[in-house]
Amino acid sequence: MTPLEDALRDSAAAVDAALESLVPAPDGADGRLLEAMRYSLFAGGKRLRPFLVLSGADLFDVPRGWSVNTAAAIEMVHTYSLVHDDLPAMDDDDLRRGKPTCHIAFDEATAILVGDSLLTLAFEAVTAPEGHPDPAVRAELACALAQAAGADGMAGGQAIDLAAETRELTLDEVIQLQRLKTGALFGFSCEAGAILAQEDGAARAALRDYAACIGLAFQIADDLLDHEGTEADLGKAVGKDAAAGKATFVGLLGAEGARRRAEALVDDAIAALGAFGEAAEPLRAAARYIVERRH
Amino acid sequence: MTPLEDALRDSAAAVDAALESLVPAPDGADGRLLEAMRYSLFAGGKRLRPFLVLSGADLFDVPRGWSVNTAAAIEMVHTYSLVHDDLPAMDDDDLRRGKPTCHIAFDEATAILVGDSLLTLAFEAVTAPEGHPDPAVRAELACALAQAAGADGMAGGQAIDLAAETRELTLDEVIQLQRLKTGALFGFSCEAGAILAQEDGAARAALRDYAACIGLAFQIADDLLDHEGTEADLGKAVGKDAAAGKATFVGLLGAEGARRRAEALVDDAIAALGAFGEAAEPLRAAARYIVERRH
Repeated sequence: MTPLEDALRDSAAAVDAALESLVPAPDGADGRLLEAMRYSLFAGGKRLRPFLVLSGADLFDVPRGWSVNTAAAIEMVHTYSLVHDDLPAMDDDDLRRGKPTCHIAFDEATAILVGDSLLTLAFEAVTAPEGHPDPAVRAELACALAQAAGADGMAGGQAIDLAAETRELTLDEVIQLQRLKTGALFGFSCEAGAILAQEDGAARAALRDYAACIGLAFQIADDLLDHEGTEADLGKAVGKDAAAGKATFVGLLGAEGARRRAEALVDDAIAALGAFGEAAEPLRAAARYIVERRH
Repeated sequence: MTPLEDALRDSAAAVDAALESLVPAPDGADGRLLEAMRYSLFAGGKRLRPFLVLSGADLFDVPRGWSVNTAAAIEMVHTYSLVHDDLPAMDDDDLRRGKPTCHIAFDEATAILVGDSLLTLAFEAVTAPEGHPDPAVRAELACALAQAAGADGMAGGQAIDLAAETRELTLDEVIQLQRLKTGALFGFSCEAGAILAQEDGAARAALRDYAACIGLAFQIADDLLDHEGTEADLGKAVGKDAAAGKATFVGLLGAEGARRRAEALVDDAIAALGAFGEAAEPLRAAARYIVERRH
């Protein structure tokens, strides 16, 4: 295993333990909702956003107990967005990470409530006293998470994405769409460590720059995987966006141009971390991984 | 107009002004999501939960600027729950407050995102600095709101309600279901004033008791309206729950028994407010209104 794979595995284990205690296995008859929440949460995700939270927080020596809690909250928000995006009325996907999506394994109503409940629980997790001893930090975490996830962030990006099926977007419009749809939550993931450390200056701005670059690189890499990958690699249907007539980075820049753009963004992301020295090595490795991954 | 009608109208106007500034009319081309959020928010609701927030906060002389913000947040959570509950996969309702439901007026994907975005924005509203000068209050508001709205509250109640279509519930089970599905958010609405005032003793407990009584009375009154009312009165389909074989209070207690139970709960609610004297008159009037309303 590479050092990054080791670190990803360790961070995933820590976040999974936090998620286990936030969403415990149900013991009663009315446990179907909890069961479905756990089905989607523990579906083998890479836990990339939690890794960014923990690695960002480590830069400021934030105690892991606090950062793991925020990391678990972000993973719940990410999972909620996947469950709702997969619904028949949205992207209508039957397969996610090689398993039936939540509404296939359970039913549509349950999948809607799973998303609603995970989103809500994320806000409970960041505002509960265990998340940080200073309530000002907890309130700021919740407010920044809401801004990243809501109509001016992730949910707004998904709305534009749905509308994009009816007309062709320009490169600038696709960049703006992805900045909202995937970039905003990456941004919060990377800045969360600075919020937890009550750092609000150049260090936080550097993490914001890093996040903007890797968020876009991640989406370009996704488009490349969708273009080149196989369903077996990805555990989900491939080529759907292009087939639906949606503008993708590959369609707009060509495969080679998209790859060059993603690599340049990784260089920029790494450059943004210059002031952190050796301590930012996990974040640098994550930036490289984002464009090199096969799924 | 009765004094209560006057007070409801004034409080609705204050809350609508706050909602206008939280969800402003869109000015750009990508405004469909905002437009749909506004469609559902400004659909002529009674603003009962905001009225409870403001009236509860008034007991402690909480500045209206703070309580209106929390009231707007609760109305956003209430509206999100209606939009998602009306979806085809859930209760499949075409009509709400006499108007086409969100997924009929727009589309299903938009309705899902409207709910998601309103829920998210509610947490932004209560945690933003404008909501209260003390961040400890903002964090507590968000945490309590999440507990009321999530899998151990409103969303959990809706999940049990969906499961109830497949088997008959007992009276105790229906009470427990409604305690989650409608009671939890009533509870938070009534307690929010105490949280804003940082009152955590007998006064807060009294508001919690009051809320438990009116929450259940509200649901019994809903069942009675569904049993007796007409579609024109209610602005939505009637008799659906009974037709779907769902246990209702009217089915379990009979119309007369249900009415007596609701009236006894109103008496209990009013008794819980004894210590507040004259200042609690709006809350007493609201309790009576809940069982006397015709829609």
